[in-house]
Amino acid sequence: MTLSEFQLIEHFFSRVGCAREDVLLGVGDDCALLSVPAGENLAVTIDTLVEGVHFHPGTDPQKLGHKALAVNLSDLAAMGAMPAWATLALTLPQNDGEWLASFMRGFSALANRHQVQLIGGDTTRGPLTISVQVHGFVPPGKALTRDAARPGDKIGITGTLGDAGLALLQLADGKLPKRSLRERLESPTPRLAAGLALRDLASAAIDISDGLLADLGHICERSGVGAKLELNKLPLSEEVKAHVKKSQEWSLPLTAGDDYELCFTVSPDYCAQTEATLDKLEGGFTWIGVIEKSQGVRCLEADGRQVETGQGGYQHFQSA
Amino acid sequence: MTLSEFQLIEHFFSRVGCAREDVLLGVGDDCALLSVPAGENLAVTIDTLVEGVHFHPGTDPQKLGHKALAVNLSDLAAMGAMPAWATLALTLPQNDGEWLASFMRGFSALANRHQVQLIGGDTTRGPLTISVQVHGFVPPGKALTRDAARPGDKIGITGTLGDAGLALLQLADGKLPKRSLRERLESPTPRLAAGLALRDLASAAIDISDGLLADLGHICERSGVGAKLELNKLPLSEEVKAHVKKSQEWSLPLTAGDDYELCFTVSPDYCAQTEATLDKLEGGFTWIGVIEKSQGVRCLEADGRQVETGQGGYQHFQSA
Repeated sequence: MTLSEFQLIEHFFSRVGCAREDVLLGVGDDCALLSVPAGENLAVTIDTLVEGVHFHPGTDPQKLGHKALAVNLSDLAAMGAMPAWATLALTLPQNDGEWLASFMRGFSALANRHQVQLIGGDTTRGPLTISVQVHGFVPPGKALTRDAARPGDKIGITGTLGDAGLALLQLADGKLPKRSLRERLESPTPRLAAGLALRDLASAAIDISDGLLADLGHICERSGVGAKLELNKLPLSEEVKAHVKKSQEWSLPLTAGDDYELCFTVSPDYCAQTEATLDKLEGGFTWIGVIEKSQGVRCLEADGRQVETGQGGYQHFQSA
Repeated sequence: MTLSEFQLIEHFFSRVGCAREDVLLGVGDDCALLSVPAGENLAVTIDTLVEGVHFHPGTDPQKLGHKALAVNLSDLAAMGAMPAWATLALTLPQNDGEWLASFMRGFSALANRHQVQLIGGDTTRGPLTISVQVHGFVPPGKALTRDAARPGDKIGITGTLGDAGLALLQLADGKLPKRSLRERLESPTPRLAAGLALRDLASAAIDISDGLLADLGHICERSGVGAKLELNKLPLSEEVKAHVKKSQEWSLPLTAGDDYELCFTVSPDYCAQTEATLDKLEGGFTWIGVIEKSQGVRCLEADGRQVETGQGGYQHFQSA
């Protein structure tokens, strides 16, 4: 790529997302200059997608643009933060204007939906790699960390589990997944409204990127507690329900990553209020278990029988 | 890389750089949580280094760790910002603990020197790619942007020009550059003290990453002005001086990138104070020309003859 082509990209970057008043200087100088509102802390997260690892070569660039931002916004949601700014480090094998325009369309549409402005970027030549960093605001003391789940807290989850994983499985088998499943894999919805609502309700939260067992395990580990899940309560789409029934095992909803739903814990005092608030939101939510003193995550069948679940997580899922 | 190995890396990340009081939550949750001091704006920049593009395969990882952070700190310096936090998105071909430990040693040493804390990161598997984002503070109205150079302002530059470029040239010719040149290429010094000092003195600033002509050109373009450079005033090491003499052309100091010196403009009212302040700093500084109304960058020999310099920039240098 020549310098002038990079400059074109930089110019292109300068018009992505909302124009926010707290951006004093956006793309085009040595740094962006930003003003964090008084009384807010800054929440920051960074995530990378690599071709051939996180997505197949030839993936629709518009969906990739959406997903690269969505997985980061999901981290803000899990923190109860309000999104504000994004930066984009894009390594491209060649200067493909059509690809880039399509990628930025997907990125911009999601950025606009959540009032996010792209404030900086770096474009380099090399194997296709996308790093996005997002910044959000959360008032002091209101962030949803992983370390404050307490025995007796109910465990909730937004949306449904295992859809993205089932789409991946079907693609690996050479089948074309149903559109609804494919959209869950390719265009995940960051649960930002739920994250904001949970600021005043949840004791802990995380987003499901490595699978429910692994991610709930992070909450348990950090909080020094354990958890009991009731498998028949897991929120499943018809397709995942059918897959579980056929395969006679729960590994898909328990260990598949890429769902980007929120898993959170709520003290009994706030459960009614949580139901009143979250039931109104897109995707809804479901109680799936309870936090216990005894460490580890236990899964119970409808008849109370405990199920062996292994170590969980993305790794486990891949070998499943 | 397995999940547990990634977790080890995350654990490793949690101890990099200073422990800062404004970091409320560092590595290990969905986001880092940060407190921007009252009365400060936030300056943010991101830069990526790709193996085979920005550095040769087999580059000493400790030097790479230094450089990946240094090129970002250089952007903060060019903005007059005080460094605070960094995030690191590291894509690695394999889990090589020795390589990683060495990389982090180089990164940490520089982070510690400038009171920077690593607050977040993402490690993924793939072709070696390093994205670093840094955050710094600058009081409102004090940032050194590119758009406020005025006719009559003197043009200053820190350190010397063309050393990194000469090292690259010699390496491409199969020669081992002198240690001092190699260090300029592999371990650039971000001119943070100069950047902070220039907050109250300079009208515009940029760091030299694409070559003096290209980067000074950015200031001129943004400010709607031009510049006249006196070539015999360019600060050159003995080696670059000898190269210019032998090659009988100035393209090395004018268009070689990777020096990471600051180029800045100062109104005549502040020149004496700038000299008094910057002369005390490591690397010193030199006046090399003046901003003029007429657009474009003109280069004059000692005898007043104007030299044809082409379009400048890294691209030009590569074909030189």
